[in-house]
Amino acid sequence: MGELRYFAVNDIEDRNINIYGRLGRVRQPLPLLFNGSAVEIRVSGSDLWIEVETDNDFHEPWVAYELNGALMGRQMLLPGKHRICLFRNMDPAGIKTVKFYRELQAMSEDEKCKVLVHGFELNGEFHEVRKLTRRLEFIGDSITSGEGSYGAVTDTDWLAMYMSASVNYAVMTAKELDADYHILSQGGWGVFCGWDNDPRHNIPKVYEKVCGLVTGPLSKELGMDEPYDFTSWQPDAIVVNLGTNDITSFSQPPLVNPEDGKTYKMRRNEDGSLNREDELKVENAAVNFLKMLRKNNPKAHLAWCYGMLGCDLNLTITEAIAKYKEETGDTNVSFFQLPNTTMETFGAHMHPGKKSHENATAALTAYLREKLNW
Amino acid sequence: MGELRYFAVNDIEDRNINIYGRLGRVRQPLPLLFNGSAVEIRVSGSDLWIEVETDNDFHEPWVAYELNGALMGRQMLLPGKHRICLFRNMDPAGIKTVKFYRELQAMSEDEKCKVLVHGFELNGEFHEVRKLTRRLEFIGDSITSGEGSYGAVTDTDWLAMYMSASVNYAVMTAKELDADYHILSQGGWGVFCGWDNDPRHNIPKVYEKVCGLVTGPLSKELGMDEPYDFTSWQPDAIVVNLGTNDITSFSQPPLVNPEDGKTYKMRRNEDGSLNREDELKVENAAVNFLKMLRKNNPKAHLAWCYGMLGCDLNLTITEAIAKYKEETGDTNVSFFQLPNTTMETFGAHMHPGKKSHENATAALTAYLREKLNW
Amino acid sequence: MGELRYFAVNDIEDRNINIYGRLGRVRQPLPLLFNGSAVEIRVSGSDLWIEVETDNDFHEPWVAYELNGALMGRQMLLPGKHRICLFRNMDPAGIKTVKFYRELQAMSEDEKCKVLVHGFELNGEFHEVRKLTRRLEFIGDSITSGEGSYGAVTDTDWLAMYMSASVNYAVMTAKELDADYHILSQGGWGVFCGWDNDPRHNIPKVYEKVCGLVTGPLSKELGMDEPYDFTSWQPDAIVVNLGTNDITSFSQPPLVNPEDGKTYKMRRNEDGSLNREDELKVENAAVNFLKMLRKNNPKAHLAWCYGMLGCDLNLTITEAIAKYKEETGDTNVSFFQLPNTTMETFGAHMHPGKKSHENATAALTAYLREKLNW
Amino acid sequence: MGELRYFAVNDIEDRNINIYGRLGRVRQPLPLLFNGSAVEIRVSGSDLWIEVETDNDFHEPWVAYELNGALMGRQMLLPGKHRICLFRNMDPAGIKTVKFYRELQAMSEDEKCKVLVHGFELNGEFHEVRKLTRRLEFIGDSITSGEGSYGAVTDTDWLAMYMSASVNYAVMTAKELDADYHILSQGGWGVFCGWDNDPRHNIPKVYEKVCGLVTGPLSKELGMDEPYDFTSWQPDAIVVNLGTNDITSFSQPPLVNPEDGKTYKMRRNEDGSLNREDELKVENAAVNFLKMLRKNNPKAHLAWCYGMLGCDLNLTITEAIAKYKEETGDTNVSFFQLPNTTMETFGAHMHPGKKSHENATAALTAYLREKLNW
Repeated sequence: MGELRYFAVNDIEDRNINIYGRLGRVRQPLPLLFNGSAVEIRVSGSDLWIEVETDNDFHEPWVAYELNGALMGRQMLLPGKHRICLFRNMDPAGIKTVKFYRELQAMSEDEKCKVLVHGFELNGEFHEVRKLTRRLEFIGDSITSGEGSYGAVTDTDWLAMYMSASVNYAVMTAKELDADYHILSQGGWGVFCGWDNDPRHNIPKVYEKVCGLVTGPLSKELGMDEPYDFTSWQPDAIVVNLGTNDITSFSQPPLVNPEDGKTYKMRRNEDGSLNREDELKVENAAVNFLKMLRKNNPKAHLAWCYGMLGCDLNLTITEAIAKYKEETGDTNVSFFQLPNTTMETFGAHMHPGKKSHENATAALTAYLREKLNW
Repeated sequence: MGELRYFAVNDIEDRNINIYGRLGRVRQPLPLLFNGSAVEIRVSGSDLWIEVETDNDFHEPWVAYELNGALMGRQMLLPGKHRICLFRNMDPAGIKTVKFYRELQAMSEDEKCKVLVHGFELNGEFHEVRKLTRRLEFIGDSITSGEGSYGAVTDTDWLAMYMSASVNYAVMTAKELDADYHILSQGGWGVFCGWDNDPRHNIPKVYEKVCGLVTGPLSKELGMDEPYDFTSWQPDAIVVNLGTNDITSFSQPPLVNPEDGKTYKMRRNEDGSLNREDELKVENAAVNFLKMLRKNNPKAHLAWCYGMLGCDLNLTITEAIAKYKEETGDTNVSFFQLPNTTMETFGAHMHPGKKSHENATAALTAYLREKLNW
Repeated sequence: MGELRYFAVNDIEDRNINIYGRLGRVRQPLPLLFNGSAVEIRVSGSDLWIEVETDNDFHEPWVAYELNGALMGRQMLLPGKHRICLFRNMDPAGIKTVKFYRELQAMSEDEKCKVLVHGFELNGEFHEVRKLTRRLEFIGDSITSGEGSYGAVTDTDWLAMYMSASVNYAVMTAKELDADYHILSQGGWGVFCGWDNDPRHNIPKVYEKVCGLVTGPLSKELGMDEPYDFTSWQPDAIVVNLGTNDITSFSQPPLVNPEDGKTYKMRRNEDGSLNREDELKVENAAVNFLKMLRKNNPKAHLAWCYGMLGCDLNLTITEAIAKYKEETGDTNVSFFQLPNTTMETFGAHMHPGKKSHENATAALTAYLREKLNW
Repeated sequence: MGELRYFAVNDIEDRNINIYGRLGRVRQPLPLLFNGSAVEIRVSGSDLWIEVETDNDFHEPWVAYELNGALMGRQMLLPGKHRICLFRNMDPAGIKTVKFYRELQAMSEDEKCKVLVHGFELNGEFHEVRKLTRRLEFIGDSITSGEGSYGAVTDTDWLAMYMSASVNYAVMTAKELDADYHILSQGGWGVFCGWDNDPRHNIPKVYEKVCGLVTGPLSKELGMDEPYDFTSWQPDAIVVNLGTNDITSFSQPPLVNPEDGKTYKMRRNEDGSLNREDELKVENAAVNFLKMLRKNNPKAHLAWCYGMLGCDLNLTITEAIAKYKEETGDTNVSFFQLPNTTMETFGAHMHPGKKSHENATAALTAYLREKLNW
């Protein structure tokens, strides 16, 4: 076995590395900004290490790594620099594919939370990775952040360790379809407001920044608050899995927004149906979000895929899509209902478990395969 | 074992018999007009026979029978009177539940096709049946007629024997939910037009008759062409599974209607999207059908459940529902997408097979359970 | 469509017909002696009928028929001649494969029970059937007779209608392996004695006759009590699924054999283990049966496959096999444990249901495929 | 949140800790000697850390940890002291169950490999753990070491990272049955010889030592080479899953044992059957091993459970059991065939994958539940 040599991420030739997930101007060290954000290489040699730097306050990042497509390890990383062995004592001649990725979503509630990949140490050679020409973008909430995909059914704390990309319909669907992917999701957020009526927690307002979910000094340092360069990566389809928190807000108590001191509440009528005025707020937000997606992704198929935690917002979302189509004449948009999570398929704190993510993956894979003619 | 005694259907006290499916004025002999139309009794005694009279031209009726909820037999019945043994030599003291039902849909293409139950012979006593207080109505096309639920994957003839109620999501869902049911379905028909653009093949035009699918002398004799008395049976929910043929018509050649000599064709735009004018025909038909359903079923939840053979009409159907809601103010309506049929779940001639019907049953059962608070 | 023409079974050229199951000297009309015994043809034409003659006393025969490999009908046949339509109005040019078979085991308790196929009526032509060169023989008890494969889980009557070849691991395994098959099985019987200690109910004593399970005048008439000509059909493997009733006898009350007035009882020791003397009776019977099988089937692999209703006799059976190997030097014998039936997979009266037969089929198919290098 | 306080393992009261796996005289630090060896506590508080010391040469240990029964993390540990956070920022009032365990088998090929648990740091209190009164011992080879339960199907290196207790029928069966467990297994070893004919690689020779699989200075230091005190832990049943390597040796080239310079080879006859002399070596080893198990575990049910990678040794094993029964009169022994691994259920390098371990768990759980009357 030869000696280990160090390569910074930007020392690695483009053809020898795959990077998953949105990037801004900072690429060295390579920030893994979202869950599923990853670096993937193919190497010979017996041993491989990765150099990672992390920080956080309340919500520590978790990471996972795959060898030849199979999950090998998953662990918490506490603040500091880490040198993690990804494999050792393997047949030096064999070429191994290794993917290292962030399990935890971009963390809007932890300004310090970061995962930076500095580089690799190996005693072999880099080989060409398989470049994926298909591209999918997933936009969502806790479901797309894999919340509850780890943890016991009885667990109800809201913690980083329960979220994942390793057990996640978005990553699994991309894998099935052999597609590159971007994920942008945040637990508790909606297309118009958060589960608790918080009007600030809507995905559209952050969509056009590199990673607008995070604020503060780190965000500045890494360029997360800068406009995202959509020309750098155009998806074939965008899967929007939003609405679950918007519908929940109709059943939650009012919320006082500390920023403006006002009270916010999505209302229901006496018969339980949605107050039309408030329903229209969601619809308008959805219409505008579709326009925003189209503006930035001229050719992408827009597929609103919803239903893993109930489908009560079906008619609201589809009415929004109808309005969008009518206002824009754009027909490259669709609605697809994902399979609901049942008592048999729940994970932790009443969120989709592994089996539910597998069911969603099967349905969505078949749908996209036909829709995109893949 | 005592001697067999004969009881005409109308000799049996109401509390001792369950009849499934729509009925008109004729009740003796009891016509089983639709697939799933059935008679169910609970009896002691060792032997039970049923007296049935059938007729047909091209499309022979098939029937099936269950003992204590389990399928025991399924067979073709050719024109004539039949005396069919449903069980024999059983423990006379045991009380058995027997259900005898029609497998074949109401047959619009065979004016002579009929299944009439005259009565039973038994050497035991009638016992009270369990009356089902929940009620579901299913309205559909070939999917709800169970087309392809029997037959080899390679079979493509369009024949009676491939249709069923025994392997059918509608019957299975009602069973899971412990509900009485009505089925009204016809292979090839739509909410606006048939799969081949035939404008005559729409379900709404026959919905308000007892069994408007069938015409001719027999129809008159059995009162099938008379207005249906909706007050006689009000469902808790109506599942509308229509649209699969409407969307197919957009991809089929034009059809000349022999009745008016005109040519009919649902059109697509050059980019493959639906011609808006034609799409609106489907939408308007759907809006009007929802109004018709509501007029006749004031309290029923209206659930449009679609998607077992693709979901390309999702946005058309939901836009129609939005219009219906806006025009009427009625919010007791919903849209639910059923799981698609895949290569693994197809039955004969590219229609849902048993596994697909089971998948639809699981999804629909969970949906209705929550929606109806059952 | 041409006119129907009648063909007796023996009018059909060998290459145009497959016959499943043991036969003796009588071949016209063709007796279907065992469950799974079948006649299979490939024909063009629009309509096909079969002429069948049946008789019975207490236990009526049931039959089933498949079109192109898919089950279409299943029904009871009461004494008399029957003309059953197997299909009608099909595309005349298409070539259809039809298999008509007996569901009910050879019925040791009903001397009159018979199913005789006289011939077919068709308006098309016979075509060559696919001749199956692989051959499997299955020897068993109620499990191999498909008892409980039909019927509700709560049903406990012991009746013909609950048995089948259509939901049966033996037939399903042969189908998976593309093999011709013979079945010889009887509910309640063992390799040494019946479930109730009856020493007369052992399969070895009837194995060498055409169908020694049935006695009486009919048996004589059809040659069922004559020696079977083993040279007429040599299997590649013999699956022996016996033992379930032998082990049950150890837990049942004594039985007085009316033939000799003696009392029979397989005993357990005080600690619940098997009385060695009685266990050796089963072992010796098994050793002798293996010798009998080998004598009549010199080249067949002998696979004792057991365990669908518990595996308490594993060590008794395998000890017998060890003795057989030692005494004969024959190593072409094996033991394979079949998957047990669980609460989820039971059918009627605590016998294997459809799911259990499917599980056994999967395991046995994989086993035989490897063992026979198929 | 209070301050973290440190507790050595031996500071924790017995009622507050569960230790899984064999132990010798050394208990502080607590050595986790086998795969599945574990420490389990129930604690309040927001944060929990574990202090672990590891060492190794070629084969590094992997560990995993569960929170409330759900797997949270799995990672490699390289030589040194490790302070691993098991959870943080949880609801301090909640009582959490945490299990930390060794994934890697006792490593006969790495004398330095060790996992020592020194203690825990927590800011809460210890609570009583649930003591498990049922006890199972599992003895096996690579299957029981979980080899291939991690890793891609294409991976064929023989490395520590592919083995596990987290995806392992033994641990899963114990969990299903709510039982404490011991595991003693070694990849490549048999009851008589190793897969490569190495006569030294037999489990019986190490069974009576604490952990006789490991030799060298560490073994001495930790008392692994001392006699195991069987009175300290008597199982209700012992599952012996051996034979897979013994049968493999019959198909492998001869091996020269460096210790005695002799050549070893298990032979087959020309017709492919096992050479009887060599088969008897396996049988005698099995007979003697059963006697050894009985001597040390007077009341345990001995269940030889075999078949996850083929069942070619069924008749050899059962003949050995028959001899053991005859020689000893002991009837508290049984044979149970485990479901085979198929193309659909393989994990890495043709060993059982997760699905195969789940299948084995389901079958074995049902078997033991009935056999032990649990």
